Amino acid sequence: MIATATATPALVDVLTASKQASRSLATLTANRKNAALEAIAAELEIGGDRVLAANALDLANGRENGLSAGLLDRLRLDDARLAALTAAVRDIIALPDPVGVVVRGSTLPNGVRLSQVRVPFGVVGAIYEARPNVTIDIAALALKSGNAAVLRGGSAAENTNRGLVALIQQALESVGLPASAVQTIDEFGRAGATELMGARGLVDVLIPRGSADLIQTVVRESTVPVIETGAGVVHIVLDATADESMAVDIVHNAKVQRPSVCNAVETVLVHRDAAARLLPPVLTALRASGVVVRGDERARAIDAALEVATEEDFATEHMALELSIAVVDDLDAAFEHIRRFSTQHTESIITADMANAERFLAEVDSAVVMVNASTRFSDGGEFGFGAEVGISTQKLHARGPMGLPELTSTKWIVRGAGQVRD
Amino acid sequence: MIATATATPALVDVLTASKQASRSLATLTANRKNAALEAIAAELEIGGDRVLAANALDLANGRENGLSAGLLDRLRLDDARLAALTAAVRDIIALPDPVGVVVRGSTLPNGVRLSQVRVPFGVVGAIYEARPNVTIDIAALALKSGNAAVLRGGSAAENTNRGLVALIQQALESVGLPASAVQTIDEFGRAGATELMGARGLVDVLIPRGSADLIQTVVRESTVPVIETGAGVVHIVLDATADESMAVDIVHNAKVQRPSVCNAVETVLVHRDAAARLLPPVLTALRASGVVVRGDERARAIDAALEVATEEDFATEHMALELSIAVVDDLDAAFEHIRRFSTQHTESIITADMANAERFLAEVDSAVVMVNASTRFSDGGEFGFGAEVGISTQKLHARGPMGLPELTSTKWIVRGAGQVRD
Repeated sequence: MIATATATPALVDVLTASKQASRSLATLTANRKNAALEAIAAELEIGGDRVLAANALDLANGRENGLSAGLLDRLRLDDARLAALTAAVRDIIALPDPVGVVVRGSTLPNGVRLSQVRVPFGVVGAIYEARPNVTIDIAALALKSGNAAVLRGGSAAENTNRGLVALIQQALESVGLPASAVQTIDEFGRAGATELMGARGLVDVLIPRGSADLIQTVVRESTVPVIETGAGVVHIVLDATADESMAVDIVHNAKVQRPSVCNAVETVLVHRDAAARLLPPVLTALRASGVVVRGDERARAIDAALEVATEEDFATEHMALELSIAVVDDLDAAFEHIRRFSTQHTESIITADMANAERFLAEVDSAVVMVNASTRFSDGGEFGFGAEVGISTQKLHARGPMGLPELTSTKWIVRGAGQVRD
Repeated sequence: MIATATATPALVDVLTASKQASRSLATLTANRKNAALEAIAAELEIGGDRVLAANALDLANGRENGLSAGLLDRLRLDDARLAALTAAVRDIIALPDPVGVVVRGSTLPNGVRLSQVRVPFGVVGAIYEARPNVTIDIAALALKSGNAAVLRGGSAAENTNRGLVALIQQALESVGLPASAVQTIDEFGRAGATELMGARGLVDVLIPRGSADLIQTVVRESTVPVIETGAGVVHIVLDATADESMAVDIVHNAKVQRPSVCNAVETVLVHRDAAARLLPPVLTALRASGVVVRGDERARAIDAALEVATEEDFATEHMALELSIAVVDDLDAAFEHIRRFSTQHTESIITADMANAERFLAEVDSAVVMVNASTRFSDGGEFGFGAEVGISTQKLHARGPMGLPELTSTKWIVRGAGQVRD
């Protein structure tokens, strides 16, 4: 029974078409889905120029509207980035089809046979900001998992997204699939995003991608179930027994190797008994790579050159070469700090103490908890999932790095021979 | 980072205490959780009289407030029902602990070891109506799965629930666990329910139990993730090739064996080529058990004694000895009817045609789809899960009958020896 709060007739039509398309997609073989993905890759190669022209328009508008250099860079497509997108689609072709996988099953005492099987959600909605790569990414992941996709990108990328969706739809039709399997609702503006969030019954799951603000708005306003892929205020704890070179290498790697991503470390908590030993070499390594390091009072007592770390610093995902340090009395104090400031994405402890390692793994309530490893490993690609669906910071459905199976639901299949219940 | 919309300081205190209690529960061994459950069972045996006295008060108030006989019956506890509740708690003791189960794992090429492990959600909230058994049920299931429980029962059962929670808390303290592991917020009234739905960050998941209205309100208003355990407008399709005695037995069993439950059939769709053959014996059997049967025009052309089935009848979960029948042209017409009226809970087809059976299983988008079996098998107990957490009609997290593992989340445990990312 479809109960939806959407009001604009035209948008309801779009979503109804998505729902219809999702029915054809649900029963497609992997071969046919892969053929559709290959057609998209081929169209990206053939039609790239048109997409780049549309992107040039968005970039010109963006410059006129005073978009920051960072946003313009995210918005920008070029030959290399298009080639990377095309390669990403082909990577998804190579992944196993999650649909139809039997999760578990049994035969009841009366002979009734049960199996729980992976099925597509149906319609996956995505709300995101000016990153045209998400358009291709979500569309390809949705198709591979048998879902229709409804995309609401940022208005700054409107022309680029329209071009990309036109190209995807052409590819879909070329292999005999409905164009409505992938649709954009950018033309409906903000009202469209609001209605998408209220379209429970037509849209099965909604994935927000972008700033913490965007994600929180969707979580708060959506009646469609949301998969929250959250920001990472990621912590590394340097325990009293932490090995010095391990501490230096891991903190440096976790901050410097790619500072703009959600699994980069934001805060280091160092045990008071190890602070004088570990902070100097850690700070030397970080500063050599240009990291701006801030500290609480106790950290600044060890290194007076540290800038002052405020409460806000400890609560911020910098996504830049910035890091905050606090000295803690013990593991419990570290846990208390993490509970207060963590986004429950990823935390790691560097320690030689087995009991402390086990306590950390058991008691820190984050999607990914680590011992003696860089937080940068908290990633679908590194975990071997092959595709980057996002990293869930919620506890329902999926938690941590998500692969294709996380874009499916399940269904119970029951086969009998006339059995009834006593 | 805890971001919550709750406003009443006292309620925030209650929920904060739940969150704190959840931390102690999360790392308890199965032995300690089972000891707590056994203490609850023992308290139910010892303190039953006090609970019955509180229940008598609620019943008297209910009669005064004009509660229906059905509601009064749901509200009523007696020695037999208390004994059944006690037995249910002991059944849960016998189930395996879902926490700590390793779901999957691997070792990365660089030697980093991954395992995905079941962990409790943290705090499970329940909003339900005047069924005191839910108080014990949810509390016991939550404890077994390592979760704290916050309960908001109906005001009609306020005294009974207060008595039950006091008894549970006494049991918890007797085994050294925090009383705040199970709390009621009934004293905060409707405002309390509203705040519970907004307590994202303090409450990890919310389970509504009761009428379709209650469930829809929670789904609409909650920012806390909800597990929707829905109503069942359940269909049985009698295909052209359906065996007569199978059709009669299964329809009769699915309607009559226990009409007041969500997996009882509400609508029979019969293929036009089989309607004249199957309807007469099916109707005879149903009427012999006192079922009021309604039909569409084509069904009434075969049996003029059928009452008229309206659109509303087809959309209603009667939970009573009432059933609607429609004649359909083919499988596609049956699918169309199901898409329109089903709550996506459970549907079954009776057929001898293998191709139609497979189409039905593949194309009907419900939590449980069956061939030649009674819809009454759509049940956690029948599926061998041991406990009845409810039947999810949503696609996220859990779908269909839920067992204890569905009351848990997962966490990724990563063990390294100093590895960093290249």
